[in-house]
Amino acid sequence: MKEYSDPTVQDIVSAQTHVYRFLQPTPLYRYSGLCDLVGTDVWVKHENHLPVGAFKVRGGINLLAELTTEQRSAGLFTASTGNHGQSIAYAAREFRARATIAVPERSNPGKVAAMRGLGANVIFHGADFDAARQWVSARAAEEGGYFVSPTDESLICGVGTYALEIVETLPDVETIIVPVGAGSGACGVCIVAKSVNPRIEVIAAQSAQAPTMQLSWAAGKPVTASMDTFAEGVATRVPFENTQRIMRKYLDDFVLVDDEEIKSAIRQMLEHTHNLAEGAGAVALAAALKLKDRLSQRKTVIVLSGGNLSSEKLRTILA
Amino acid sequence: MKEYSDPTVQDIVSAQTHVYRFLQPTPLYRYSGLCDLVGTDVWVKHENHLPVGAFKVRGGINLLAELTTEQRSAGLFTASTGNHGQSIAYAAREFRARATIAVPERSNPGKVAAMRGLGANVIFHGADFDAARQWVSARAAEEGGYFVSPTDESLICGVGTYALEIVETLPDVETIIVPVGAGSGACGVCIVAKSVNPRIEVIAAQSAQAPTMQLSWAAGKPVTASMDTFAEGVATRVPFENTQRIMRKYLDDFVLVDDEEIKSAIRQMLEHTHNLAEGAGAVALAAALKLKDRLSQRKTVIVLSGGNLSSEKLRTILA
Repeated sequence: MKEYSDPTVQDIVSAQTHVYRFLQPTPLYRYSGLCDLVGTDVWVKHENHLPVGAFKVRGGINLLAELTTEQRSAGLFTASTGNHGQSIAYAAREFRARATIAVPERSNPGKVAAMRGLGANVIFHGADFDAARQWVSARAAEEGGYFVSPTDESLICGVGTYALEIVETLPDVETIIVPVGAGSGACGVCIVAKSVNPRIEVIAAQSAQAPTMQLSWAAGKPVTASMDTFAEGVATRVPFENTQRIMRKYLDDFVLVDDEEIKSAIRQMLEHTHNLAEGAGAVALAAALKLKDRLSQRKTVIVLSGGNLSSEKLRTILA
Repeated sequence: MKEYSDPTVQDIVSAQTHVYRFLQPTPLYRYSGLCDLVGTDVWVKHENHLPVGAFKVRGGINLLAELTTEQRSAGLFTASTGNHGQSIAYAAREFRARATIAVPERSNPGKVAAMRGLGANVIFHGADFDAARQWVSARAAEEGGYFVSPTDESLICGVGTYALEIVETLPDVETIIVPVGAGSGACGVCIVAKSVNPRIEVIAAQSAQAPTMQLSWAAGKPVTASMDTFAEGVATRVPFENTQRIMRKYLDDFVLVDDEEIKSAIRQMLEHTHNLAEGAGAVALAAALKLKDRLSQRKTVIVLSGGNLSSEKLRTILA
C-alpha cells in the first residue's frame, strides 16, 4: 500500500491510471433550465452516471489497486450508509477480494441490495454510520482483515479524479460546489482546484440537519452535532479529522442547506436534467440556489455526487 | 452530403469519426436487480446519459457533419415529438446552423424548452408528428432550407454507433432489444449486429397503442394504425418506408407492449437502476419482461434510448 501524508494533486493524477482501467470519465453538461433557475452558467458533473451510481466507486477502485496482494486476500471491512459500501463491494469484486460491510439498521434498501448483488457480505448493525463503523472496525481487527476508513487517503485520491475531469473539460470554471458527507469528494476537489488555479472558488455544502462537518470546519476543531437528515449520503455525526484538516487548508466556504431545500432541488434536477439525484446528490444544487446572488456571472459547476434515491423517498418527495 | 443507399456497417464505422468529436461512448451496465427481475443476464445501454438525454443526438451530429456548407447555411427544418428535435437543435448549435423545428401542439414541455434553450426556432403545428412533418416539409421547400427526415440515412448511421459500442463492450451479447419510433435506432442495431455476428438476435418493440411500425413490418407493407400512446418517443402514426425495408431484411422479431407495461417498466428502471426513462426508454425493459421465458439464459442488452420524461408524467406514473 502506498504511503500518504495529505494527498497532493500528483497523487490524484497517479490515481487516474487505476481509475480509468475500470471507469470512463463522466459527462459535464450545461442545462439551460438550471442556468435560468440559478441565474448563471451552471454545469452538472454527472457522478451519478458511474457504475453503482455514485462518485465513490472511483475511490474504491484506487484503494483496491493500491493494496498489496496480502491486504486484499485478508478481506476488506468497512461501514457505510450505502454508496461507500457499494464502491468497496464493486471494487472488491473486480479485484476478487472479499468485502464485509456494516450498514446502519434502517439503511436504504436499494443500496443494500446492490451491495449484496455485487457479492458483498452485508451486516446490519447500529443506529447510524458511526455505530456501524465502530463495530466493524473491531471485527476487522479480530479477523485480521483490512479496515477501510471512508476517508482513507487513497479513496480521496481516487475520487479526486472527477475534479481533474472538471478542470480539463471546463478550464475557466470559477466556482465548484460539492456536497460533504465524510469529505473525501470535497477534499479531492479542493486539492485539484487550488493546485491548478487558486482562484477557483470551492464551496462545500451539507444538510443543516447533519451539520457536524460544517460546524467543525467553522470552529477549527471537532464539533459533534445532532444528525437527522433524510439524505444518508451526507448523514455524518462524528467529524473526520483528515478531511477536516484538508478542508481547513483549502476550502473557501462551507454552507448548510435545509432538508426541504434539498428535496426541492431533487425535484428541480428531475425537471431540468431528467436525472435522479439522491439527497446528497442534490445538495450542491440546493446550495447554488441559496447562493444565487453570490454566484451571479460566475461559471459554476455543481457536483451531482450520486443518484441512489429509493423509489419510496422519490414518491414522497414528488407527492 | 454523402450519398447513401441503405446504410452498411462501414457507413456506421465512418460515422464514429464525426460522433466522437462531440460525444463520448455511453455506459453499458449490468444491474443485479434487473437480472433477477427478467431472470437472465441483463445489461442496460445508457443512451439517456448523452447530452439532450437521448440516442438521437448521435444522428444529429453525423448529419450536420455530412452536410455541405451551403446546405448548413440554408438552415435546417424538421418535425419532432421531442428527442429528434433536440438532437437537431444540439447539432445545429455546434455547427452554427439555424434550426426550425415543428412540434405537435401538445408536446412534452421539457423537450420544447430544451430545444429553445439550444437556440432552435420551435413552432407548434398539428395534432401529431405526421401533421407537423407535412407542414414543416412544405415550409422548408418554400424557404429553400434543408428538410431533415427523422429516418435520414445519415441519422441511422450516427445512431448506429451505439450498437458498435454494445458489440465492442459485450462481444458475447445474444439478444438486443430496441424500441422503435421511426426506426432509426432499430436499423442501426440490426445493421451492426447482423454484420458483426448474424447469430445476435435483434428484437424491436413498440407501444401497442401506436403499432403502425410493428403491423407494417409483420404485413410486409405499410399499415396505418391508430395512435394513442403516452410515450411520444414511439408515437408513430404513418410508417417510414426506408426503415421498414431495413428492418424487414434484418430484424428477428418485433413485439408490442402495452402502455401500462411501459409505465411499470419506468418504475422498475427507477427502482433498480436509479435512472429516469421516458416511455420509449422503458419499452425495451417492458418487452424483456414480457419475453422472460424466451430470454432465459440469453445475455440480453436493453436499450434505454432516452430519459426525457416530464415531471408531471412521472408523478402520475409513481402515484
